Parts: sequence; structure tokens; C-alpha cells
Amino acid sequence: MALLTRIRGPRDLDRLSPEQLDRLASEIRTFLVDAVSKTGGHLGPNLGVVELTIALHRVFESPKDKILWDTGHQSYVHKLLTGRQDFSRLKMKGGLSGYPARAESEHDFIENSHASTVLGWADGLAKANELLGRDDHVVAVIGDGALTGGMAWEALNNIADAKDRPLVIVVNDNERSYAPTIGGLANHLATLRTTDGYERFLARTKDILDRTPVVGKPLYETLHGAKKGLKDFIAPQGLFEDLGLKYVGPIDGHDLAAVESALQRAKRFNGPVIVHCLTEKGRGYQPALQDEADRFHAVGKIHPDTGLPIASSGADWTSVFADEMVALGKEREDIVAITAAMLQPVGLDKFAKAFPDRVYDVGIAEQHAAVSAAGLATGGLHPVVAVYATFLNRAFDQVLMDVALHDCGVTFVLDRAGVTGTDGASHNGMWDMSILQVVPNLRIAAPRDADQVRAQLREAVAVEDAPTVVRYSKGAVGPAVEAVGRVGGMDVLREPGTDRPDVLLVSIGALAPMCLEIADLLDKQGISTTVVDPRWVKPVDEAMAPLADRHRVVVTVEDNGRAGGVGSAVAQALRDAGVDVPLRDFGIPPRFLDHASRAQILTEIGLTAPDIARQVTGLVSKLDGLHQSRVDTAGETRAEAAARTGKATEPVRD
Amino acid sequence: MALLTRIRGPRDLDRLSPEQLDRLASEIRTFLVDAVSKTGGHLGPNLGVVELTIALHRVFESPKDKILWDTGHQSYVHKLLTGRQDFSRLKMKGGLSGYPARAESEHDFIENSHASTVLGWADGLAKANELLGRDDHVVAVIGDGALTGGMAWEALNNIADAKDRPLVIVVNDNERSYAPTIGGLANHLATLRTTDGYERFLARTKDILDRTPVVGKPLYETLHGAKKGLKDFIAPQGLFEDLGLKYVGPIDGHDLAAVESALQRAKRFNGPVIVHCLTEKGRGYQPALQDEADRFHAVGKIHPDTGLPIASSGADWTSVFADEMVALGKEREDIVAITAAMLQPVGLDKFAKAFPDRVYDVGIAEQHAAVSAAGLATGGLHPVVAVYATFLNRAFDQVLMDVALHDCGVTFVLDRAGVTGTDGASHNGMWDMSILQVVPNLRIAAPRDADQVRAQLREAVAVEDAPTVVRYSKGAVGPAVEAVGRVGGMDVLREPGTDRPDVLLVSIGALAPMCLEIADLLDKQGISTTVVDPRWVKPVDEAMAPLADRHRVVVTVEDNGRAGGVGSAVAQALRDAGVDVPLRDFGIPPRFLDHASRAQILTEIGLTAPDIARQVTGLVSKLDGLHQSRVDTAGETRAEAAARTGKATEPVRD
Repeated sequence: MALLTRIRGPRDLDRLSPEQLDRLASEIRTFLVDAVSKTGGHLGPNLGVVELTIALHRVFESPKDKILWDTGHQSYVHKLLTGRQDFSRLKMKGGLSGYPARAESEHDFIENSHASTVLGWADGLAKANELLGRDDHVVAVIGDGALTGGMAWEALNNIADAKDRPLVIVVNDNERSYAPTIGGLANHLATLRTTDGYERFLARTKDILDRTPVVGKPLYETLHGAKKGLKDFIAPQGLFEDLGLKYVGPIDGHDLAAVESALQRAKRFNGPVIVHCLTEKGRGYQPALQDEADRFHAVGKIHPDTGLPIASSGADWTSVFADEMVALGKEREDIVAITAAMLQPVGLDKFAKAFPDRVYDVGIAEQHAAVSAAGLATGGLHPVVAVYATFLNRAFDQVLMDVALHDCGVTFVLDRAGVTGTDGASHNGMWDMSILQVVPNLRIAAPRDADQVRAQLREAVAVEDAPTVVRYSKGAVGPAVEAVGRVGGMDVLREPGTDRPDVLLVSIGALAPMCLEIADLLDKQGISTTVVDPRWVKPVDEAMAPLADRHRVVVTVEDNGRAGGVGSAVAQALRDAGVDVPLRDFGIPPRFLDHASRAQILTEIGLTAPDIARQVTGLVSKLDGLHQSRVDTAGETRAEAAARTGKATEPVRD
Repeated sequence: MALLTRIRGPRDLDRLSPEQLDRLASEIRTFLVDAVSKTGGHLGPNLGVVELTIALHRVFESPKDKILWDTGHQSYVHKLLTGRQDFSRLKMKGGLSGYPARAESEHDFIENSHASTVLGWADGLAKANELLGRDDHVVAVIGDGALTGGMAWEALNNIADAKDRPLVIVVNDNERSYAPTIGGLANHLATLRTTDGYERFLARTKDILDRTPVVGKPLYETLHGAKKGLKDFIAPQGLFEDLGLKYVGPIDGHDLAAVESALQRAKRFNGPVIVHCLTEKGRGYQPALQDEADRFHAVGKIHPDTGLPIASSGADWTSVFADEMVALGKEREDIVAITAAMLQPVGLDKFAKAFPDRVYDVGIAEQHAAVSAAGLATGGLHPVVAVYATFLNRAFDQVLMDVALHDCGVTFVLDRAGVTGTDGASHNGMWDMSILQVVPNLRIAAPRDADQVRAQLREAVAVEDAPTVVRYSKGAVGPAVEAVGRVGGMDVLREPGTDRPDVLLVSIGALAPMCLEIADLLDKQGISTTVVDPRWVKPVDEAMAPLADRHRVVVTVEDNGRAGGVGSAVAQALRDAGVDVPLRDFGIPPRFLDHASRAQILTEIGLTAPDIARQVTGLVSKLDGLHQSRVDTAGETRAEAAARTGKATEPVRD
């Protein structure tokens, strides 16, 4: 690492010879394999952009020129070249973020790791440069996979509209997003890739024409006089050029000199320009290159030589879903699956293998996942759309206006729900149970264990006239939590052991073990607690209000944002039933969470059994105080009266 | 209307002669101008698709073949041809919907009037046909404007992926969405339009080549041997063909025979195909054709001859915003405006006239509106993004992940918030104050009158490190509602007239007059009421909990969905402060609302002063009952104690 350690910032690249640059690239690859195999992280994408990143930093002057990374997991090399070479705590609390982070460096701008955003950012920054008279450059780096996202199209359409507003778009084309890129765009890019002979072809044609004095000239000029030159007719970059974007490429993204030269040309254009770089994901690391299933997109800790995981993980939520989908697929021919470029990460690979005709990978296009599901459902099928919870935000309007408004039986399976941790703010799945509350008729299941994933998935796909959602956590699934009873459609996980219990603890999803622990802690304080798992958290079970009314306090605990979450929904249901038992709702506070382990984050935000038990104890003590002063003089309170009679008070509203 | 009235269904079109069809088209135009001028509705778009709709219904067999309309306001002719000719109550309660409606006809499928969805629906339906072995046709009609939406791109990319899955896409190209279509796509379509001479050009070229025995042949074949034929090199339909879509056109969309012929050809293709129709919005109605500002996209009641509005409307919310934006633009050079193809409807036309360089129309592309705003803000400007409230749903992820996560000072102005009425379910702006609650740091203003629109817009654009939202209703703005006091940042609109008031009525936005009326009604029942307008509804003002604690009941009233709305947020704030005063939240129930007038809908959902007053009276009476039994024996309640001492109880959580 003799060269790498001497790079303190981009300008240190300027004085390196071509040989030194090659050595630097090699050192960076060694560093990445070594570092990422220790900590886990995104390996393949970064191995693919080593030369490209070096070239970008040699040609442009960061941070005056803004180099923007789409889906920032390809920014490790950029970090290494901008003074960040301590990868020992990558994605850990206090360590480097796995994405660009403004807090880390003035060279970073976009922290968002949702794909396809960079062109929109670039358009805005370029417009600001124009309005404020700055001659800074804006360079957006986007993968071919991210180009399948609608945002990219919206941005391209706008960027192309201003022919003299400089903006360099580098398409990092490795023929795959997470999985291989799909769709018409991919075919188009494939055509571009295979026509590197077009310059030769062009020369030959021109030669033929030149040798034809009578006809050749007018034809050549006729062609030239048309909207585009001959070269443009023959080179199939049409897609971009039809939009009015200049096109440079395709370039071998591992030929540093060629990339630099292309970027220099692009920099001199006084308008929007596409630089099309062909790169190899996992370049220089044999296990990654041999990996058809794209496991090296992001890895846990691996052995650097073999690329095999160091610790094998046990059963996880995803694989429980994966197996049950195959079982369901066998039972029901009308079940089809949809993924947005994440067949394997969401566990649909098994289903795809079993039923290749019944799975649709729509690309990084969550909007299309949802709206095409509405079409499939209207056509008589039952689509299961499996995405990470955080990515469903992209399809909110389509879930509401296409699926729900049209009474479509579509099941959304949200993986990585709740606090996910190390991937940082934009990967936490902490919004779904809040924003989906507003969607009429939609039902949300939050299974607490593997058995419930299976059971609730089955209940979900049985609903044919409304959207259903099944959401679960990231990683290992805990042991089964058995129900000890049933109230309405809700599972009772713990009986209070008294006829006049203090606390109704509403446990949501994977937090069941924590809630049982809270109940044990409260028990030690002499506070009797019922623990109930609603299973379906939307709509609120009709048995909830009467049950709540038999307790003195209701406490909800969810792995989801507090604002408008399940706790709020339960509180509203109680209000609507005229049950004014005090309620406290615990969940994720309304702020963005820095990267750290899930356990660290839960501790930091107070979503732990001891924290919650302490707060509930405080509340009950306070009520005891109020209660005592009243009991002394006035007998029982309203809640007690209701608890004694076992009868809910009359609802105020219906 | 001799012919039109005899059309009971699409098959009645089969036996008409070309002359009769022309007469029918003429009758339909007369009918539309006459009908829509009486009721209001979408005029221009429907005048443009008369021949196209007739041709579609002659060539395809609806409803077996599915004819799908994007942004369904172009479906009036379709309604006329499928047995719906009573337009007398168009968009009114009990009358025809302004969009396709499944409840009206088996010929209707998509009710959603958010743009750019149809290709996704069509892709899903085509996939269902394929899987289930049906040979039905799917035909999607989409305007050129809607093609600028990212959903359209995501869908095209998927549709193009299956070369043998039949699907007909009709691009209805009238060179404008609401406003003239912008961006690279528009330029591309313009090129297509102006090259109708390419067939002639092709013939000439081929002729030249044929006359050249030695060179011509090889060149022609060389060209032919390339990926595409010569015709394809010269015709610039590349954009679609690069994606692998067959292309037919451009066709004169008012030449019925030509359209039919093109559709027949498309129908025979065994794969996805684009039929490019050029139409004239407002065709056949002189006032609409002369209207540069596109006022005839949708109209209120107009005089059919002049096209002038029958009743002139007074000041509306939009124009108050429009004028203040111009004033702000003069004061601050850093303020820029963004619209998503709705410059005039959202009132940015005045700003655009005053500051043409500082307004960006991004097309029907709300995602790009938000993300490019993040870029502009990062670049040092303050963007004001003005959209209809319901359309912000399209940009939820971008507001959250691009604008808020990056601490961008961007102001979103949401017009047509709350119950809008006649446009039906998908146009009500009833989601914004719920889903935006989850966005960290974002602040929401709900101005109650024109003065507050001005004042709060100014407060909003003064925030430089977080997103702000200003949301207001559709239509006429009511008279000013003066504050009589201030508590924290909140305006007191009415004092209770007693030291121990019963009800704290929290009035949101335009509902202030209704809330004052509720207070008057309660007053007559001897219930003393404070009315407070928080002005900024997110975050909940810190003065809210202490103020609530001095009352016996808190009531919130909002023109927004109840689920997770402002009422829920206030309730949560009270819980967090340990203030367990009973609360009742009034708003829009969590269901889709059928089209009707705003007043009719408000009555139907119980969002009226008498309804709310009655419910609050019931609650207070109930508390009085409970209270009385306690007062008799135990003196004052906790709420009373707090009210008496004027001191909030200790918060349980901090």
C-alpha cells in the first residue's frame, strides 16, 4: 500500500505516472478485498469502479466540481482517494458510513442509498450553477441498473431540455444492477456494447461513398443533411441522442487512459453529455467474478481468498418467506411474484427456480412493481410483491391509487422492516406501518416469528379484494413465541394472573420476546401485565378497545416510527370507542438514525425492555398516586369500574 | 344527435359508413361543448380524441379487449360510445364520474386520475393474459405529457422486454400535457412529427442506390444488414425502437381511416407496439384552439360560444399564493419555483412571467420536482415546489430521502388540499398531513385565510435547513379570521370566557370558520370552548400540552385523513407530555370518497359544525356524569386541578 497511503486527497493523484496509477489501482483492489472481508460491505460494485474513480478525481476538481454517486455503495474508492482510509469500522458505530456522508467529507453530497436519484440531484445542482453564474462541473455516476428507475428517466428528460447547461453523466455499465439488469434498456445497452466496431463500419461506408463520384456525394450529404450525421445513424446510441444528449463511448472502464480521455472530452462539452463506461463488477477478485448469483454485491464478513462467509447464519426471516412462497406456488397456480431487481435478497430466487414463468423482475422500479401488480390482479392473478420495507416508499402512490383504490388483491412482503442498523438512515424500514395506515382497506400483518410469517402470508394471499402487507425484520428469526390465548383475532402471549390487571402491553411483530421481558420486569414491580400480539395491526382488532378498557394503562411497542404508527392507530381506535385509558406508545423517534448495529440503535433510542419497563412503572406509580387519593375518598375510578364489570363504556362515535 | 343517440354500445359503430362516422364525430364534438359548458369538466382533451376513440372501439372488442385510458379525463367520448350519454350531472353526486369508473361500466378499468399509470396497468394485464392463455388485446392510451412521468419509463422498459407479449400503446400526442410538454422527450416527438416526409426521403435514397449498380447495392445491404433497416436509420423513432418496441406512425389522429388502419396493423403484431397519433387538443372548438394558456384543459361552467366563464370566481387560495410568490421573488433572488406540468393551475404563471429564468417545469414528474429541488437547495437556492396535494404522494420518498435527510431548505406548496369533491377519489388532497408526519424535521403550515397564506409562506421560505410545507384548500378563500390572542406559536381564535374552560378546540387551516361555529353551538349548551389555530401543525407546538391540560376535553378538526393525521399527532404530543385529557379527533374517515360537491361530502362524513358540536356535547355530558359522581365525593379531578393551578403535570417521557 506504498502508494495508496500517500494519497491524502484527489490532487495527490495528479503527479502519478501511468505505471504508478496502475499500481495504485492494484493496491486499492487489494485493500478493498482485505478490508471488506473483515467488516462486510459492498465489494463487487467498488472493485468495478477503481479506474473510473481515479480518472474522475484526476479530471475533475472535487469538491469544487461535484462528483455525485448514485446508490452510494460504489463510493469506497472515492473515500480512499479523499482522505478516508481507515475502513476498520466500516458501517459500524463511529466508523465510516457505507455510503457517502456529508459529516465525513466535503467531497460527499448524496447520502441517500435509494437508487436512481443522482440525475435529479445533478440537474438541480447544474441549474443552481447556471443561475448563480458558477463554472463548476457536476458529474453524476449512475449504474445501468439504476437507469431502469423512473426517476432517472424524469431527470434525463429534463437534463436534455437544456442543451447548454453542462452536466456529465457517467453510466457505469456492468450489465447488472443487483441482479442482471433487465428490460428494454438493458437490451439497448447490450447493443451499444457489441457495436464497438461501428467506427470501422463508418469508415468503410464513407470510403464506399467517396469512391462513387456521381451518387456517393449526394447520398452522403443527404444523410448528413438529415437531423443527424451518418455516424449517428449507424451508431446505436440513439436512445440518449434522441433525447438530445451527447454521447461518448462505449469506453473500457478499466482502461484508465481511455476513461480519462473520455471524461476530458465530456468536460469540454458545454452541455449535457453521457459517458458510457463498461466495467466489470467484482473486477480483479476471482470469487466475485465467478459469482453468478451476485452474492458479492454486498457481503458479510468473508474469507478473503475463498470469498466464503466466515460465520454461517441460522434461519432468517427471508428464507422462511422464501420456502413458504414455493409451497404456496405449488398449491395455487394464480400466485405470481414480483421483485424490483432483488430476486435473491428478498428470497424469491427459490420461487423463480420452481416457477420461472411466474416471477417478474421489473428492475429498480418499485412504482412499476406495484402498478403492474394491480394489472396482474385485475387480470385474475394474485401477485406477491417482495421489496425491502424502505423501498416501498417509492411506490406509495401506486399502492394507494392503483392497488387499493381498485380493490386489487395484491400482497406486499416487506423485508428488512424496522431498525436495520449498519446500512444507515436510508435503509431502516421504519416508515411502512405509519404511511400505510392511511391506505383504505389495506391490511398489515406483523408476524412475530417464523410460524407467524408462514401463517400470515397464507392469510394475506387469501385476501382477494384488497392489498395486504406482511412485514418482518432483517436477519435471524428468533424462537417461536407461543400464544396462550386468543382475544378476537389477537394472540394473547401472556395472561396477567389477576382479574384486575394494570397494563395491557401490545406487542408488534418481532418485538414479542422483548415485550415478554418487559412484562417480567413489571411483574417484579408488582405490576400485572397482559401481553397481546394483534398479528394484524391494521385495521386495529375490534377486540382491542374492550380489552384495553379492562386495564389501567395501555402500552404499545413497535419497531417502526412513532409518528402515525401502530401505537397512534391503537390510540385512535380506543378514542373512537370512548375508551380513555391512558396509553403510551413506544417506537422509533421521528429522526434519521445514524449507522450502528441494530442493538446499539435500539439502546440509543430507548427501545429496550428495561427502558420501557422503567417508564411504564413510572406511569403506573403516578396513577397509583392519583388513584390512591381518589380511592380514599371516592371509591373506584372509571377504568376500574369497567374492569370490574368487564363491560366497555359506550362509544362516543360510531 | 341523430346518430349519437343510436349508439348504445361499441358494436353499433360497426355498421356505420365513413360518412356516418364523420357525422358522428361532429355530433360528439357538439355534444361535448354543449354538455361540458353546462357542467364544467375536461373539454380540450376529449375534443382531441373523438376519432381516435371511435377507431379504438371499431378495431377492438371492448370489454373483452381492454381499452385503458391514462389520466382518465380523456374518456368522455369513450363514455358516450359505451352507453353513457347523460352528462347532465357530470362529476356531480349521483351523476357520471369525470373519469372511468368501474361502477359505471364494464368497459372501464382504471379510475386513477394520477398520470402515467396506464402502461404499468397494461403490462400487468398483458402478463395475466399470457399466463392464463387468453388472446384478449390490451390497449393503453397515453398522452405525450404523461410519457414524461417515470412510471411510464419503468413500464416501457418492462414491456419492451417481452417481444412476443402483445400490447398496443397509443401515444396521443397533442404536444402538451396540461401545459406544453417539456423536455427531451418533447423534442424527440417534435422530430417525429416533422419528419412525415421520411417515406419520400427513403424512396429517394433507395432510388439513388438502385441507380448505382456497383456501390448502391452493397451499401444498401450493408445498411440493411446492420441491426436495423434503412428506413429505421432515417426515421427517428429510435427512442422507442431502441427499447425494442415496434413503432407505427406518426398518424393523423383526426383521419379516422388512417387511425383505424394503424390500429389494425398494431393489433396484428404479436408483440408490444407503439401507435403514434397526432391530435389537436380542443379540436373543432375555436375558443379552445385559440387558448395558449390551456384554460380549456378543464373548465368550470362556460358560455359555449365564447368559452368565457359564466360565473367569475372571487379570490382563491391559488391566486393569493401566486401574488405573494411574485412579491417574494422580487425580494429574494435565491427563490426559484418548480412545477410539474401545472404552471397555471398552481398559480406559478405570474412568477414565471416575472422571473422566466427562475421557474422550472419538470413535466409530469413529481419525483424529479422534489429531487431536483434538493439539488437546487444544495446549490444555494430556495426552491418552492408547487403541486396539488394529492400528487405529492408520488414524491414521498424523495421528500423524505432527498430533501429531508439532506437538510434541504425546500418549500412544498400543496394546492387543492383536503376534500376537493367533484374530481373524485384520486384528487382529494387528504393524505398529505398524515404521511408527512413521519418526515423528520419537516414542518407543515396549514394557513386558515389569505393573510395566513402570505405570512406562513414567508415563514416557510425563511427555513433554510429543512423542508417546509404550506397546504391550502381548493377554490375561494374565506374572509380573514382574526386572532384574539397567542399561546406559544399558536393563534387563539376564541377565548372561552371562563377560567375553567371545558373544551380546547384545535382548528386546522381553512376549517377555522367551522370551528368558531362549533364553539358557538357549544356555547349554547353551556360548554365553554377555547379555539386555537396552531398555524404550524407539525411539529406540535410546545404550548399545546399545557394548554390542553387546562381543559377537560381536546377536540381536533382537520380537512385531512384521520389516520395518522394532525389529531393523532396532537394526541401523541399530549401523551408524551403526560397529559391524559380525553381527546377526540375529527377528520376524513379512512376510505375513498366518491365524487360529489365538497359540501355534500363534508356532510356525508360528518365534518360539519352541527355534527361535531353534537358529538362533543355528548362527550362533555358523559364526563359531567362521571365528574358529578366524583365531585360529590372527591372534589376536583386531575384536569381541574391542573386547570386551577395553571400548571402542567410532570411529563412521563421526555
